[in-house]
Amino acid sequence: MAIFVQKFGGTSVGNPERIARCAMRVKQRVDEGHKVVVVVSAMGHTTDELIALAGKVSTTPSRRELDMLMATGEQVSVALVAMALESLGVPATSLTGGQAGITTDGAFGRARVTKVSRERLDRELTLGRVPVVCGFQGLSRDGELTTLGRGGSDTTAVALAAALQVAEHGGACEIFTDVDGVYTADPRLVPTAAKLARISYEEMLELALLGAQVMHPRSVLFGERYGVPIHVRHSQRPDEGTLICRETPDMEDVMVVGAALKPDLGRVSLRRIPNNPGVQGMLFEAVANAGIMVDDIVQTEFGEIASISFTVDHGDLADVKIAASQVLDKVGTGELAVEIGLAKVSVVGTGMKSHVGVASRMFTALGAAKIPIHNITTSEIKISCIVGREHAQRALAIAHEAFGLDKIGSKSQAEATAV
Amino acid sequence: MAIFVQKFGGTSVGNPERIARCAMRVKQRVDEGHKVVVVVSAMGHTTDELIALAGKVSTTPSRRELDMLMATGEQVSVALVAMALESLGVPATSLTGGQAGITTDGAFGRARVTKVSRERLDRELTLGRVPVVCGFQGLSRDGELTTLGRGGSDTTAVALAAALQVAEHGGACEIFTDVDGVYTADPRLVPTAAKLARISYEEMLELALLGAQVMHPRSVLFGERYGVPIHVRHSQRPDEGTLICRETPDMEDVMVVGAALKPDLGRVSLRRIPNNPGVQGMLFEAVANAGIMVDDIVQTEFGEIASISFTVDHGDLADVKIAASQVLDKVGTGELAVEIGLAKVSVVGTGMKSHVGVASRMFTALGAAKIPIHNITTSEIKISCIVGREHAQRALAIAHEAFGLDKIGSKSQAEATAV
Repeated sequence: MAIFVQKFGGTSVGNPERIARCAMRVKQRVDEGHKVVVVVSAMGHTTDELIALAGKVSTTPSRRELDMLMATGEQVSVALVAMALESLGVPATSLTGGQAGITTDGAFGRARVTKVSRERLDRELTLGRVPVVCGFQGLSRDGELTTLGRGGSDTTAVALAAALQVAEHGGACEIFTDVDGVYTADPRLVPTAAKLARISYEEMLELALLGAQVMHPRSVLFGERYGVPIHVRHSQRPDEGTLICRETPDMEDVMVVGAALKPDLGRVSLRRIPNNPGVQGMLFEAVANAGIMVDDIVQTEFGEIASISFTVDHGDLADVKIAASQVLDKVGTGELAVEIGLAKVSVVGTGMKSHVGVASRMFTALGAAKIPIHNITTSEIKISCIVGREHAQRALAIAHEAFGLDKIGSKSQAEATAV
Repeated sequence: MAIFVQKFGGTSVGNPERIARCAMRVKQRVDEGHKVVVVVSAMGHTTDELIALAGKVSTTPSRRELDMLMATGEQVSVALVAMALESLGVPATSLTGGQAGITTDGAFGRARVTKVSRERLDRELTLGRVPVVCGFQGLSRDGELTTLGRGGSDTTAVALAAALQVAEHGGACEIFTDVDGVYTADPRLVPTAAKLARISYEEMLELALLGAQVMHPRSVLFGERYGVPIHVRHSQRPDEGTLICRETPDMEDVMVVGAALKPDLGRVSLRRIPNNPGVQGMLFEAVANAGIMVDDIVQTEFGEIASISFTVDHGDLADVKIAASQVLDKVGTGELAVEIGLAKVSVVGTGMKSHVGVASRMFTALGAAKIPIHNITTSEIKISCIVGREHAQRALAIAHEAFGLDKIGSKSQAEATAV
């Protein structure tokens, strides 16, 4: 008998019929003799509707009150899912985040889980009941309702799975969603993309940060820290999905497991500026103060003169330009250049660490296709190239093919290596 | 500086515009220098919508899960009202029933308040903030969300007002609703009905039990027990409403403060049955087991032979007839009669206790109008007559006029006595 945490997203519980299908999914695991804890998000567009309602009452609602409001979305879902389970003969108990033992800090709207107590869950499981827990929310030590921010329900599921030690009990955290697993690339962009049977936390994290939307990076980090096996599956189909787990030796034999695309980037360059200590700090503090997330940073220097380039989302370019100009005024010398219409193509794989020639294979493939590379950044397990937006989708497909990703899918990665 | 508890019902917070007007109402009290605690119900038809949603998921949802679901309605309201207050510059904090210190027993769907802790409310008030509390709900000692059942938000308001000792601090519990106070009769039935400036708890309780829908009997009882002044006011109009308070000596000078009508009653009579000990118990246990509320009971006896009559809502007659027949079979002798098309007209007033001739004045008035009286029941502070439904509304108007109720309104009752 294993323990499974099953998480259903907003689309999966979007209406009474879908809720009934989720309940069937839970019942299957229960019928197999396993213990199950369910985590659910708010139904469909509930969260958006609540935000719109708040907007009609106040132009500047406080984060605390928004959390009080938002938390009702998941509470509706858990009650309905528990009812659906009971109507199938599966004893179930809905629980708010707080009741389920999730303690957070007091940062409304983006609270961090600080503690998970498993007492209540254990009590329900011992009684043979299925706890159905509100995702996305917790209770602060002061007894305030908090929400976890983006990707919060996944984080709830992984945190509960960690507390319940599902790995030690042969179970997993199952994330049911509207895709059937993690693909070697976004299938809408690369039709030959294949579903991965397994992927390591590190790889998933890089892919998530690079634009893959299957899992939020935060929940993957949580899973890595506590070694929670995360199984990403389709909520309406029975197939096996993708298992996110610790890197195993055979995984290293695969150089690359996925390719990702971030479209619509812009690049800001400060050229010929004096490379004084502190100039980088001044620049990126100004950018951060403007509330802008920076993608990649590249610096080159020639003696005491440096150039700094960084990419940002296209929509942030205007704000970045203002902030960067002000810094340049303070520095006193140098010039500012802004390029638009860029995109970033990346490949990710733990295997890169032990293989040579990964970068050259990517550059050669893009070169053969006559796609100019504007910038290169690498980490231990990824290589990213900035290309023109007009080449972006083709560059993704070329990188995908160059590493044989279309042949990797649905086989174990050890098998895939043999290809 | 007084403490006021202000309760707004579902209609009063039915949309963002109305919420804004409620917030203005609260701000007025705050601007006067008072401390205010707000209690709100779920918006408009939210509760009905949630029940409908539950019905689509399960035909027999558990009371616990229904409470989990229902409790979200008030939680949405408190967040929005708190936001509206803050946007007017009034610092506010929304609180669930549990956060506000309301402990209940574990009877889901009809929980009783067992304890009110004022710590959190005091903390918010000391900080100069307005606590906005979910009506209708609490937390059981096991940490379960419970709802208080019908009239629950009024009960929450009165319970908080009791805990905060508003009477001792010169405040009151203000119930804002869609009528502007308690009337001497339902103004839709008796156009000359007048608004009462004051009414005692006992009188309000009788009127509520006799069909007046302004306040739920339960919250009136709570107010009586803890001596909470309850001010019933219109949520969208500034006028003074009706104060429900302890009986004062001058109140006794007024014989009757209100007349009420229960239409659509039926009467069941068991005639010529042996007056054995236990026969009444057997009968009303059978009726109660059928889930039927009994209105008034009258028994007459001649030696060892008795007749028992009781009135019930018209819609319950068929079920009552079955239950009563079965009892008659067991008793072995007697006959069953069922009358339909009845109504009950009542007058209520604490002053009856010290005045003679109240009953005769009512009977004389009805007699002069040639309205036959089928049954009479009295308590210390009320007289009820069963009449034919076809005479009901006229009988109500006649009783109303016979006691000068059209002249009582909007004056203090001491003044009214002088009329």
